[in-house]
Amino acid sequence: MAIVNSENDLMEKIVSLCKRRGFIFQSSEIYGGYNGFWDYGPYGIEFKNAVQQLWWKYMVTTRDNVVGLDSTIICHPRTWKASGHVDRFSDIMCDCKDCKTRYRVDQMEDPTTCSNCGSKNLTPPREFNLMLKTYVGPVFDEDHVAYLRAETCQPIFTDFHLIRIATRKQLPFGIAQIGKSFRNEITPRNFTFRSREFTQMEMEFFCSDEDSMKWYEFWKEERMKFYTTKLGFKSEFLQYHDHDTLAHYAKAAVDIEFKYPFGWGELEGIHHRGTWDMSRHQEFSQENLEYLDQLTNKKYLPTVVETSVGLDRMLLATLAQAYDEDKAPTKKEGMDDDVRIVLHLTPMIAPVQVAVMPLSKKLNEKADALQKDLCNFYRTELDVTGNIGKRYRRQDEIGTPFCVTYDFDSDTDNAVTVRERDTMAQERVSLSNLRSYLDEKIYK
Amino acid sequence: MAIVNSENDLMEKIVSLCKRRGFIFQSSEIYGGYNGFWDYGPYGIEFKNAVQQLWWKYMVTTRDNVVGLDSTIICHPRTWKASGHVDRFSDIMCDCKDCKTRYRVDQMEDPTTCSNCGSKNLTPPREFNLMLKTYVGPVFDEDHVAYLRAETCQPIFTDFHLIRIATRKQLPFGIAQIGKSFRNEITPRNFTFRSREFTQMEMEFFCSDEDSMKWYEFWKEERMKFYTTKLGFKSEFLQYHDHDTLAHYAKAAVDIEFKYPFGWGELEGIHHRGTWDMSRHQEFSQENLEYLDQLTNKKYLPTVVETSVGLDRMLLATLAQAYDEDKAPTKKEGMDDDVRIVLHLTPMIAPVQVAVMPLSKKLNEKADALQKDLCNFYRTELDVTGNIGKRYRRQDEIGTPFCVTYDFDSDTDNAVTVRERDTMAQERVSLSNLRSYLDEKIYK
Repeated sequence: MAIVNSENDLMEKIVSLCKRRGFIFQSSEIYGGYNGFWDYGPYGIEFKNAVQQLWWKYMVTTRDNVVGLDSTIICHPRTWKASGHVDRFSDIMCDCKDCKTRYRVDQMEDPTTCSNCGSKNLTPPREFNLMLKTYVGPVFDEDHVAYLRAETCQPIFTDFHLIRIATRKQLPFGIAQIGKSFRNEITPRNFTFRSREFTQMEMEFFCSDEDSMKWYEFWKEERMKFYTTKLGFKSEFLQYHDHDTLAHYAKAAVDIEFKYPFGWGELEGIHHRGTWDMSRHQEFSQENLEYLDQLTNKKYLPTVVETSVGLDRMLLATLAQAYDEDKAPTKKEGMDDDVRIVLHLTPMIAPVQVAVMPLSKKLNEKADALQKDLCNFYRTELDVTGNIGKRYRRQDEIGTPFCVTYDFDSDTDNAVTVRERDTMAQERVSLSNLRSYLDEKIYK
Repeated sequence: MAIVNSENDLMEKIVSLCKRRGFIFQSSEIYGGYNGFWDYGPYGIEFKNAVQQLWWKYMVTTRDNVVGLDSTIICHPRTWKASGHVDRFSDIMCDCKDCKTRYRVDQMEDPTTCSNCGSKNLTPPREFNLMLKTYVGPVFDEDHVAYLRAETCQPIFTDFHLIRIATRKQLPFGIAQIGKSFRNEITPRNFTFRSREFTQMEMEFFCSDEDSMKWYEFWKEERMKFYTTKLGFKSEFLQYHDHDTLAHYAKAAVDIEFKYPFGWGELEGIHHRGTWDMSRHQEFSQENLEYLDQLTNKKYLPTVVETSVGLDRMLLATLAQAYDEDKAPTKKEGMDDDVRIVLHLTPMIAPVQVAVMPLSKKLNEKADALQKDLCNFYRTELDVTGNIGKRYRRQDEIGTPFCVTYDFDSDTDNAVTVRERDTMAQERVSLSNLRSYLDEKIYK
């Protein structure tokens, strides 16, 4: 049924829908926007929270070998010396001296020519660190420099032993964190795919070196399963892509790639990080970060297998999977079908799960009372304006799986009409059964 | 029953419990810690998320006149020119020239004498801006300065019309946001009460000037009700405190104060902000930010009533309310009762809601299967080591409301013993009833 053909077209449609319906829009628009920064509006934040909670439930709540952490964005600056970010987290750039355009050298078609003005008058390439820098404390000097974290995983390494002792966990176990990270990208692009402020969801799994490849394979599969079973992605939109080159300390690294409207791109990384991070923090902190294995009585630095994904690009991929245009019958006889825009989001993550609609203004009060009850259990909305067909279109566009209409019969038969988004089928459901009907469809 | 007498004592006990059990600890401890930055460990993040979700449900999900937002931490820098933070968000400080101690002048007992070394050799008082500064883009100059937001409300003002249009809302309605804010506090203190990185939960309610005092009174009551009904605070620990002086644009402002272990202090503020913020952003953006009232056909700048609370101090207050030491029977005959540390957290916000315990190692497998089922519905933990009394103490200390013991009879009577934290009463509950039993107690 899908009538979206061009993939560029799809990207534009998603961006436009996101702004129009208040999912995602530019930060600070009244000030002309701010390149690389995006705000989530009312539907966006409900969608974002739901996907985030789905990940947390899948990775933490339902596992007894993974626990959570919420560390500060600004950590002790030595963290980033140890991680290598201060010295090596940089892009090579050059400037056109004539038109002042700045380039990432690895992205230039011809590194000797400015593609903007054609000038060959370029500065020599130089390094540009991608961490955002600030100063903590009253003096703006080198002693007070701090950084906004470039990834959420480093505080997991530095807090590892505190957490291990507090939770009495033994290897193998993982620590997961969701939070903001910042990168001073030179060329933010593709909507929220590459931005300067973004939310990461990372899990570092600590184990012995002997077991590490087993866990690497385990998490590689688990993470793929999340997309196909929990988010309902079609498997032909997903692929593994082994890294072409490995860091010297890594035994293996793979990306889960998604076929975005602009082409295949990274969605998530699963990385065998060896003992690299722990050994660096041991060196820079001068603390012994070894683990005493109570079975073998041996001490060693834990090996780490990481799963790392950007929530913003997970949401973008989810929208791209969910977006569709099909046809729906119009109310007017003799007219062609309406084109309807619909987001096929799973009920668990839809920003509105149940829209309640009075058939007529005379029924507003009853519908309102119903919605006020349902809002204790689901994300709901009362939608009162326009004819029912128009309201369905509005709810389809934001992915609402169930529209509940309170009509003139409702008072007498104590029932409402539930209309399902994807099939557009309508079913009469008694008010006393409504909760269990919805529970079954939403939380099954 | 409470045997905590000294209030300083209580603060120390909370800090110690928080570190010992992995609720809250210093950021970057292996690097000596980082003053004013605190990490939430495994129990801490579950507790924090639960309180945050409780606020969101109370303020957004269950109201049809409040919607959500999730804006970036780094906004366009003109936002902070307009808000007044660039020019006026500062403390007056001075330094001791001899021992280099720095003071906030308004906190010095005697502003002419260094209380550390007694010297009178102080620098003249000077202003120190509390916003954290960074640079976005490749050049570190004044054109590229940006700030980490000092409060979550400003992006609500700048995004107001985008949100209004996308959601088709008419006044009065509110926009709520939860997120990190940053202040370069000179003297972070009282654990998480005053830190440099913290989470705010703010709601800006937009209305007409005529209705604004009515809404101010409404939100003042609603917010107090949140503490007494949702978090279960005792009313003698809460008080209103009207601001002694009002900003020139404000009609009213009140704090909800809580009696912390270190004394009465601000928990939340309810502020009538007039049209001040909207008029400033209108002036600095040169955009018309007026609202067209469709009933009166008049255009005006919305008046704003704000509710603003720091999540970290809400958690601290909740821990202070919940902490108790009482006596519990010891297993050994002829011995005195145990002192037990217990957190009386409501089941909704307890980091672990249900702990599952096999009575003997032989029952580990059955208990494990039970926990793996329950973890789909509650925050759970399998606790297998130590005698049952010791496990109860461990769960009491983190506020687990229900301990479920699988014993040798469970196989035959298909039932388990549920032990309630506060009363320490035990009840035999059949496995087939366990879900509805727990649902009733946790989500009632």
